[in-house]
This record gives sequence, C-alpha cells and structure tokens, in this order.
Amino acid sequence: MLSLNRLSFRSIPGKIYAVRSFSMSTRTFTAASKLKPTDLNQNTLEAKYAVRGRIPIKADELHQKILSDPTDHGLPFDNIISANIGNPQQLDQKPLTWYRQVLSILQYPKLLDHTDVFPEDVIARAKYLLDHTGSLGAYSHSQGNLGIRKSVAKFITNRDDGHVADPSNIFLTSGASAAVSYLLQILSKDTKSGFLIPIPQYPLYTATIALNNSKPIGYFLDESHHWSTNPEQIRSLIKENQAEGVDIKALVVINPGNPTGSILSRDDIVDLIDIAAEYGIVLISDEVYQENVFESGGGKFVSMKKVLSELLLENEAKYSNVQLASLHSTSKGVSGECGQRGGYMELVGFAPAVKDVIFKLASINLCSVVSGQALMELMINPPQPGSPSYEVYHAETSKIHNDLQTRSTALYEAFSEMTDISCNKPQGAMYLFPKLNFTKATYPELFLEANEFEVPVDELYCMKLLERTGICCVPGSGFGQVPDTFHLRTTFLPPGKEWVDRWAKFHEEFVHEYKK
Amino acid sequence: MLSLNRLSFRSIPGKIYAVRSFSMSTRTFTAASKLKPTDLNQNTLEAKYAVRGRIPIKADELHQKILSDPTDHGLPFDNIISANIGNPQQLDQKPLTWYRQVLSILQYPKLLDHTDVFPEDVIARAKYLLDHTGSLGAYSHSQGNLGIRKSVAKFITNRDDGHVADPSNIFLTSGASAAVSYLLQILSKDTKSGFLIPIPQYPLYTATIALNNSKPIGYFLDESHHWSTNPEQIRSLIKENQAEGVDIKALVVINPGNPTGSILSRDDIVDLIDIAAEYGIVLISDEVYQENVFESGGGKFVSMKKVLSELLLENEAKYSNVQLASLHSTSKGVSGECGQRGGYMELVGFAPAVKDVIFKLASINLCSVVSGQALMELMINPPQPGSPSYEVYHAETSKIHNDLQTRSTALYEAFSEMTDISCNKPQGAMYLFPKLNFTKATYPELFLEANEFEVPVDELYCMKLLERTGICCVPGSGFGQVPDTFHLRTTFLPPGKEWVDRWAKFHEEFVHEYKK
Repeated sequence: MLSLNRLSFRSIPGKIYAVRSFSMSTRTFTAASKLKPTDLNQNTLEAKYAVRGRIPIKADELHQKILSDPTDHGLPFDNIISANIGNPQQLDQKPLTWYRQVLSILQYPKLLDHTDVFPEDVIARAKYLLDHTGSLGAYSHSQGNLGIRKSVAKFITNRDDGHVADPSNIFLTSGASAAVSYLLQILSKDTKSGFLIPIPQYPLYTATIALNNSKPIGYFLDESHHWSTNPEQIRSLIKENQAEGVDIKALVVINPGNPTGSILSRDDIVDLIDIAAEYGIVLISDEVYQENVFESGGGKFVSMKKVLSELLLENEAKYSNVQLASLHSTSKGVSGECGQRGGYMELVGFAPAVKDVIFKLASINLCSVVSGQALMELMINPPQPGSPSYEVYHAETSKIHNDLQTRSTALYEAFSEMTDISCNKPQGAMYLFPKLNFTKATYPELFLEANEFEVPVDELYCMKLLERTGICCVPGSGFGQVPDTFHLRTTFLPPGKEWVDRWAKFHEEFVHEYKK
Repeated sequence: MLSLNRLSFRSIPGKIYAVRSFSMSTRTFTAASKLKPTDLNQNTLEAKYAVRGRIPIKADELHQKILSDPTDHGLPFDNIISANIGNPQQLDQKPLTWYRQVLSILQYPKLLDHTDVFPEDVIARAKYLLDHTGSLGAYSHSQGNLGIRKSVAKFITNRDDGHVADPSNIFLTSGASAAVSYLLQILSKDTKSGFLIPIPQYPLYTATIALNNSKPIGYFLDESHHWSTNPEQIRSLIKENQAEGVDIKALVVINPGNPTGSILSRDDIVDLIDIAAEYGIVLISDEVYQENVFESGGGKFVSMKKVLSELLLENEAKYSNVQLASLHSTSKGVSGECGQRGGYMELVGFAPAVKDVIFKLASINLCSVVSGQALMELMINPPQPGSPSYEVYHAETSKIHNDLQTRSTALYEAFSEMTDISCNKPQGAMYLFPKLNFTKATYPELFLEANEFEVPVDELYCMKLLERTGICCVPGSGFGQVPDTFHLRTTFLPPGKEWVDRWAKFHEEFVHEYKK
C-alpha cells in the first residue's frame, strides 16, 4: 500500500547537480555542441535548496495532475497541502487592509480623490509615501528611499527601547534573501572563508555559501534544550577551523529560529556577541520572524542590536569593533506579503569602506522594488489606537496571531501523540521541526529501502507522506541535523484540522508497516 | 571659472575598490579588528558600475545641498538634471493609466466593487490576474506565474510572426538585470570563461563578469557605421582568445543599443547567429529597448528569436544547437516602470539540465516580485482597439513615443552644433553617446589636468559639466570605447529645452577655455 515507485525519485529534476547525458545530433553538419552541466560554474551545480527541492517539485507535479483531471486523477487525495514553505497568502491568510489600501493608492494616485472609499489615515499615509517616492515606477536610491529608511530607523529605535538606529545604516532589500546574498558575497574572500551557521539552518545559507565557494561550518543547536546555542561548542569550532587555516568571516544566527521555532534568550545573545567581539567575526542576525512569538511558548524576542547597544554602554572598549547585520522582512510576521519582496538590513559597526562595497552591489541591482519598500514602511509604522484604520488593523492582526498560535498548538499536540515522533513546544516563527525517532534497529526495512533509493530516511518519509496524503513538507536533511537523527520541517499555516488527521493516520500506518 | 576642486574627486566614494585605511582603537582591551576592504571578496571590490558611480554620487550630494538650503546653496544652478540613468518616471513621464488601474485592484481587490471608478476591461483583466496569481502577497512559482508566462509566450509568438514561444522556456525576472546575473553566474565556470561584450556596453555586463571573476572580451561597435557589429572582428577575437586558452561562453548583444541608440539589421543578426552556431557560444540578446524605435531613425527592430526561428526552418542541422537567451523588461519602452522590477527571459535551445540550474538559482531567490510579473502581463497584452481603455492607452503611449522622439532629435541637433562633438543620429533606446573630439594636440591643458586628477578626459568633462550646470551624465569610459576616444552617455529623457541650452553654453565656454 505504501510502496513507492522508483520513478518518484528518478523522474524529477532533483539531481540537477549531477551530470546528465543527453543525445547529440548526428546530422552531417557538425554544429558545435550544446552546453552540458559540466560546462557550467560548479558552485551553481552544487548549491541545493530543499525548500523548493525534490519533494516540492513532486508536489507540483501531483498538483498539476489533479488540476488536469479533477474527477479522475487516480490519487488518494484531492488537494496538495503546501506545508513546505512559509507562504501564508498561498493558503488562507488574507492581506491586511491597511497595507493594501495604501498600496492601491500608490499604484493609482487618482484614487486619492475617492475619499469615500478610504479612511483618512490611509489617504494621509499614501500622500506621505507619494511625496517621498515620487512614483512606484521610478528607480529609488540604491540603498532604498531615504524617507522610508528614516521610518525604519525610528521603528528600530522604538523597538530597542531608545537605542538609536541611523537611516544611513539601513538598506532596503528584496526580502531578507537579497541581504544574505550581499553579505555572503562580499565576505567570501576565497575558499578558506568560513561561515558559522546553525544546524539545523535555513538552506538559503548553505546554498549561498555554495554559490560563493566558501566553507559552511555548522554549529549544532541543542534539541534537548529548546534548540539553544552552545557558546563553548562554537568557540571550539572556531579554534579547530582556525587551526586548519579557515578564515571565519561570520556567525549566522536565526532568531526566532527557522526551522526550529525556538527563541534565543538574552543570555544566549550576549554569549554570541562576546564571541564576535573576541574573534572579530561579523554577526548576521536573521530576525525575520521577530513578530512571530507565541505567548504560550514562554519565549521573548530581544533583538541582537538592542543587546549589542546595551553591551556597548557597559563596556565600549570590548564591543566597539563588533559588526552586526540585522535582517527583517515583510514576508513573515502577520504580514505574510512574501510575493511583494520587501525587506531591510541594518548594519552596525562596519567600516565605511565595507559599507560602500555593499552599496555598490545594491547599485548593480539598481534598487529593490519600490512597492516593497513602501510596504516595509506600512509594516513598521502601522495605525495607532484612535486613528481611523486602527480597529480593522488590530482585529485583522490579532486574528492572524491567534490563528497561528492555535494552529501551531494543534499540530504540536498531534505530533506529541504520534508514535516515535517527538517535538519541541513551539515558541515562534512559522514552523515545527519534529524528530522522527527511527533507528536501524527498530525500522530495519525503512533503512534498507532508503538505501536502495539512495535517499535519507527522512526524505523517504516525506515522499511517502506526499504520495499518500498530498501533504508536502521538507526533510530535515535539507536543513542539516545531528548525524543519524531524522526530522522534517513543516509549517503550521494550512487551515483546518483535517490535514493533521490525515497525517496522523498516515503516520500510524507507516509505523505499522515498518516498525519491527 | 571652470576650476575643479581636487576634493571633487577625493571626497566621494568612487574609489571604493581601493584600500582605505582607518584608525584603530588604542584602548587597553584588544578587541579583534574590523573588516577592511582587503578582507573582502576581491571580485566585489573590482566590479564597477558607472551608471551609479562617481559622477551620479556627486550629483546626489549636490542635490542634497540644494534641498537643505534652496535659497542659499551657493551653486550656479537650482536643480540637478538626471541624464545619467534611464529612469523616466523620476523625470516627468507619467505611468500609463491602464497599468496602474489594474495594479491598484490587484493590491486591493475590494476595488472590484467600484465599477464606477474603473473601465470594464480593467476589471476583467484584474479578475483574470487575481484568478491566476491568487494574491500579490504569495510567492509565485520560482520561474514566474504560469498564466503570465503563457501570455508572454503568446506575445512573443505574435511579435515574431507566428514563430512559437513555449511558456516553459520563459522565466519572469526582476527587471532584465536578474536574468543577466543568472546567466553570467552559471556560465562562469572558471577564470578562463570569457564573454564577448560590445564596446561600448551597458556596464551591468562588465560588473557582473567581474563579480564572477571571468573574462570580458570587448568587440568594438563601429561608430562610423551607426555602431554596427563587425563579424570578422568577432571571429578574430574568438580565435585569438581560444588560442590563449579562453573558453568563450557567450556573446552579448544589446539591441537596440545601450548606450549607442543604434539598431541592428537582420543581416547583422544573421552574422551573429552564424558565429554562435559555429563556435557553440550562447547568445545573450538584451532587447529591453525593443519598443524604443524612432521612425525618423530609419531602423527596424527584429528580434533575434525571430531570425533564429527563420534560420532553423532554412537549415535545421546548422542552427539546431544554437542557445539563445532573450531579455525584456517593463522598465523601458513607453512603460518606464523601473521601480516595479518586471522582466522576462526566454531561453531557446538550452539543454534541460542547464535550464534546471537556472531554475534552481531562481528558487534560491524564491520568486521575482509578483506585482512586477503582473505588470509584464499588462505590458505585453495591452487594450485593443474597441475596448474601453484603448483610447486613453493609445493617447498616453503615443504621447510618450512622440516626446521621446522629439527630445532625442532636439538633443541630437544640439550636439551636432556644438564645437568638437559628433553624434550618430538616434535610432532607438533612450540614450545618445556623443563623441568628444578632444585630442592632446588640440586640448593640451585638459589632458594635463585629467592626468593630474588621475581620471579619464571624459570623466573630467562630466564632472565639470555637473559642477557648472547640474547636468549629470556618465563618461564614456564607464561603458568602454576605442582607446584614445572620448564619449559620454546621456539620456534624452529630461523635459524642456532649457537644460540643453545650459549644456550648449557650458560646452562653448569649456572649448574656449581649453582649446589651443
């Protein structure tokens, strides 16, 4: 019943980093041959990105199959549950009225005349943004519109209890991904350049490190302590790698965690900043989930910039050379505006000449999309109590917060009841990263089958889950995990409980079939 | 009067590729030192991008000076004329009503209820795009929304007289720049990988080649024959470079030309395709100005895809292995929607495994901005005669076409009358690339002064033009030019004639001061 076709793995372009043969023309004219993968940049072949990798590509195929024949597709399910990627508006999350009203006016400023359609504060903000940007259709300053950067600086200053941010240190970027790309690109001096990344990590980091032909150095998050960081382990890794000639450039921190859903404590953050101060390593703090914090999870988000600012007041000499890049995005939080590609990066402590190089890279890309820049302004400067849009804004954002919390709890509880699965209680972000407690001793046939297909055990599990239930999630092996452990990353964004029940039923059948 | 402060060159971050020293802390705690440019990826230091380089950065400074004290800024002009970059909506070009009405509904779909505000065809198209994209806030397929790719394929098929385009070969990209970045990145196998680029070229190409540490090979466009290509010269360059071990990966063609404003004939294009067929070199055809063609210029745009399709019908054996990437954008034409970051790339003849690698890079970037994808659909599938929006659309686009033609002619005529300047008659695109006929013999002091500042003669001219008149254009040295010739690139987008007169007056004073 759970048998898997060999072609499930063979027919999809997952192994695009392997060389493919293809037939050559045998005509009389000797045309020059076409490019093969071996003719290409090896770094681009080696980069992997599991979030949109083999399992999601297969899910897309199945989705097309359902669409092409909704009544007779022959699959044991009628819809695909996209739990592989944090893409809230692909599912049922509605965009916030506040954002979209202002953006509609920015696109078509004649709507300013329609005072019956829009609340006063929407019209006022649209006028403000039009005054600052001119037109969404004009290239902005490569670093982003100055008026919007000033708003972002004010947001950071308020968020961090008055520790001041400077607009000249803010870059408006296309999501947070563009910021990661700039940072890793400039810091990859040569193949000895190393980057400390959490394991498990968001695979954008390993992919970008591979594209730059530099060295990923994974530090393990401690699953048994809510995926916390271990500064001693990081120090050991630094020493070991430095001894081998690796030039460690940056320490990547994802807080709240992706894929772990955990939140770092202030103490954890102090330890990481101490390491950066001691070794002159750049801190890259990916804080795109800073709004996604669950009260029930017991964690509290503290920005790395705030902690660094406090430490600088305590001991300027020790911390004055710390270089921190903090990232944020309009794609997550309660915004979920992934397709609009808004983001920012704040640089603290970098030498002006280094910032100039980042500015040059931003210039080569001309500018980030201006509507995404405006969206960032709307996100970090929302309606305040008493203003006409506040009630709707508050109701919509509260509902999204509550929905996320309810769904994360429901999924967490479902995993807690499944045989041989364990899961940390979610504190934040949009994901759970449950552990599949499968061992060779307890699931011998599973390991044999995975070996036969040349895929990790967790990938085999995910493929079977997909083919049997239509639920698409990502194997833990795509994020990195302690050797011989197996996980999967799933969002808890899909609505309803039916899919969770589908998963639980599949899982018990799976255990029944494979467990010795 | 025309004296130039040494600091004009020294105070601005133009030399960011040179090493800067900065003072180190001398406190008792030995903090690790900060990153210096020498600690960074050398490729990122070496890349240059003149369009937003030293002259435009200085222009920005002057602009800020005027803003900060409009009545007493001490400059001999009251506004900056941004002729350095094709950014129509930063100047006086208005966005097309058709685009912006549909996009406003996509941002705020409740506007669909306001049938009094929007014409029927706007509402119908908005519904169509909402059906296809779901929400602008959701990540799309990494290659771009399929419904929109189908529209693009239909546009190409119609444009090319029925030669069919396949949606699976279309990638929706963030402007054309993202497409250039993907292509050059995958093709840069190692430092021996070479790219044939036109000289003069759009500096995105040299910048991206530098970032990938591969080799630019300039082929000269023939200024005396309307900047046409010379296939014999290209063949010689290929042979010479191959003999030296260079692995030539691609031939870049910009048609209509940037910065030259010239249009290639069908015969020119056949020659280039023949070269690609013979040597197995990828063709990258940058056709973002395909809509910007002036009747008075005598040129006619023919797409490389169309010519290749015709050649394939004539002799399939000869051309079946040609690999062509054609680029288009919503930033230019009569759209001028630079800030919205829409674009597409069509791939023809590439092996599936190579396309898969490009798809993976697009996946790592998640997706291009979805509103930009929708804008591309609106651009290539505009209102037709008889539909409610047609008249306004036709009036607006005709006005922009006429304005561009009028302005290009006016500027061309002005250059024709200036002493020691010559200029080809514009055929298309948004630029003129006039030649400064300055020689050491006729302008000895100018060459001495340029030598003293360590800048090319054209850059000195542009800096003086900026500081004296507020007109910002880009020195020809930023685009490449035949050695010992000097040019500048200027858009003809700024409205009115006053700035042209300002330039003419400056020029004659300049000649008066420097000419022997």
